[in-house]
Amino acid sequence: MNPNKYDPVEGRSVQIDEVDWVEFPGPLSQGGIRWKLLNVAPELGSWAAIYDCPKGSSFASHVHVGPGEYFLTKGHMEVRGGEGEGGVSVKAPAYGYEACEAFHGMTNFLEDSEFYMTFLGPLNFVDEEGNTIALVTWKTVQEAWDAAQQAKEG
Amino acid sequence: MNPNKYDPVEGRSVQIDEVDWVEFPGPLSQGGIRWKLLNVAPELGSWAAIYDCPKGSSFASHVHVGPGEYFLTKGHMEVRGGEGEGGVSVKAPAYGYEACEAFHGMTNFLEDSEFYMTFLGPLNFVDEEGNTIALVTWKTVQEAWDAAQQAKEG
Amino acid sequence: MNPNKYDPVEGRSVQIDEVDWVEFPGPLSQGGIRWKLLNVAPELGSWAAIYDCPKGSSFASHVHVGPGEYFLTKGHMEVRGGEGEGGVSVKAPAYGYEACEAFHGMTNFLEDSEFYMTFLGPLNFVDEEGNTIALVTWKTVQEAWDAAQQAKEG
Amino acid sequence: MNPNKYDPVEGRSVQIDEVDWVEFPGPLSQGGIRWKLLNVAPELGSWAAIYDCPKGSSFASHVHVGPGEYFLTKGHMEVRGGEGEGGVSVKAPAYGYEACEAFHGMTNFLEDSEFYMTFLGPLNFVDEEGNTIALVTWKTVQEAWDAAQQAKEG
Repeated sequence: MNPNKYDPVEGRSVQIDEVDWVEFPGPLSQGGIRWKLLNVAPELGSWAAIYDCPKGSSFASHVHVGPGEYFLTKGHMEVRGGEGEGGVSVKAPAYGYEACEAFHGMTNFLEDSEFYMTFLGPLNFVDEEGNTIALVTWKTVQEAWDAAQQAKEG
Repeated sequence: MNPNKYDPVEGRSVQIDEVDWVEFPGPLSQGGIRWKLLNVAPELGSWAAIYDCPKGSSFASHVHVGPGEYFLTKGHMEVRGGEGEGGVSVKAPAYGYEACEAFHGMTNFLEDSEFYMTFLGPLNFVDEEGNTIALVTWKTVQEAWDAAQQAKEG
Repeated sequence: MNPNKYDPVEGRSVQIDEVDWVEFPGPLSQGGIRWKLLNVAPELGSWAAIYDCPKGSSFASHVHVGPGEYFLTKGHMEVRGGEGEGGVSVKAPAYGYEACEAFHGMTNFLEDSEFYMTFLGPLNFVDEEGNTIALVTWKTVQEAWDAAQQAKEG
Repeated sequence: MNPNKYDPVEGRSVQIDEVDWVEFPGPLSQGGIRWKLLNVAPELGSWAAIYDCPKGSSFASHVHVGPGEYFLTKGHMEVRGGEGEGGVSVKAPAYGYEACEAFHGMTNFLEDSEFYMTFLGPLNFVDEEGNTIALVTWKTVQEAWDAAQQAKEG
């Protein structure tokens, strides 16, 4: 049976200012978005990160394969196309719950913004026909993060 | 950060016939129910077990604090009071999804029955006023299981 | 805020013998595998199904993006390549927990088999380079199931 | 089967400054803690809230029955007794993952603090023997929140 039967994973914490911002991978965003990976929880398939999004930046089209929750600490963000398209437009401080299968065709930042988000399950970045361009799981983000750290040290 | 960042927990499996049945704790059931603990997943707060329930046996009142799914492999089970009380009555083979906060005031077995169930979150066994008698988490079931194994070996 | 704040989703149940077997989509399996969809839980991104797998059948390569649990009710199944490849080989009745990111390069049935499984998160069917061929979510399985029902009725 | 099979719950958002702070229930905290409930997700058994914690305030002893993640936006917080007791002491901005069954015997605020937290599963407030004083689920927090809103309007 389970060899770790009495050992849930350990808690952990991050002093956010001690971690440097890293450029977010190009094809999945535009306009200079940077991020810090705060945690991955492989046991759940979840992760947590914080994003720095300059005015005019945006994320490419993606589907939230599991539910996600954001906390907008600064700025102004349009999700799911904004209010004109049936989505929402929120100003900091704001909270949001994005359900399973929420399609984020356009996520735009109308002012310099920052948000913290927890993701339970992957993001599926898709092209115009809905085909997968990149399936972003906890493992993908950890690998991207570690590659960026090595590049910085190298 | 997370020391196990690339290590989800390991998979595991159980050959069910190699595990002996154990009496289910008395106050929480009546009529001779036995069980086998198959897995705990502390990382999720979930667990899986199989129950052998003689005709006429029943579980005490409890609330499913998280969702649970059963697979009735043998017999006839009434949940949430059965059909007369707004619940359901199912005959093997049957599947059921019990939602968060489902109150199981009466779970009765009308024939010799057996079911496998996965629990995402604890069971809250309550008295008639809804006060907690026993909060049964993955840890509680693991401790109960290990105590039963030690008693058998002792 | 949440309009359904006091309404968890409803419980539901299925009398399994009242549902007909359906052919499992070809490219994702070989050898005549059939299935019954028992439930989708869009709120969690999870689903439950039962599979009928003739001797010699197999599933194509896939990654479990979230954890999954199986209950083998009949037969003999090799997962993750079987014991020779670091995986396991189980005979009914057997239970297994497959962790997040478990890669199932080969799932083979050595005898006529049947298993029930719950999936928390999608399956990512991949080619030899690890590229996504099909991302199978709760929504994908529901659509595939409904299409099969319509074809039968048509 | 599931009547809402194609309907995950809807997304939702909250403009946090439009919601008033409410006193956190007395017996479970000391020193004037206030809170805003941001969301409950009954389908998952999860919820999200933000807490305003004056210098010297604290939460009573509790166990995290499921994993939780906090984002400390202001101040200085000691969890699990602080560093002297094997816990941690974090200063804003900070992130933390608290695992299943994490016991928070003492959560102290050393400066005026504010934190946002998501909870997957209930909190079990306990006495010195570990007996349940209050099992706080998504439903409990929703009921407490609505009662506070009604008291304010009344």
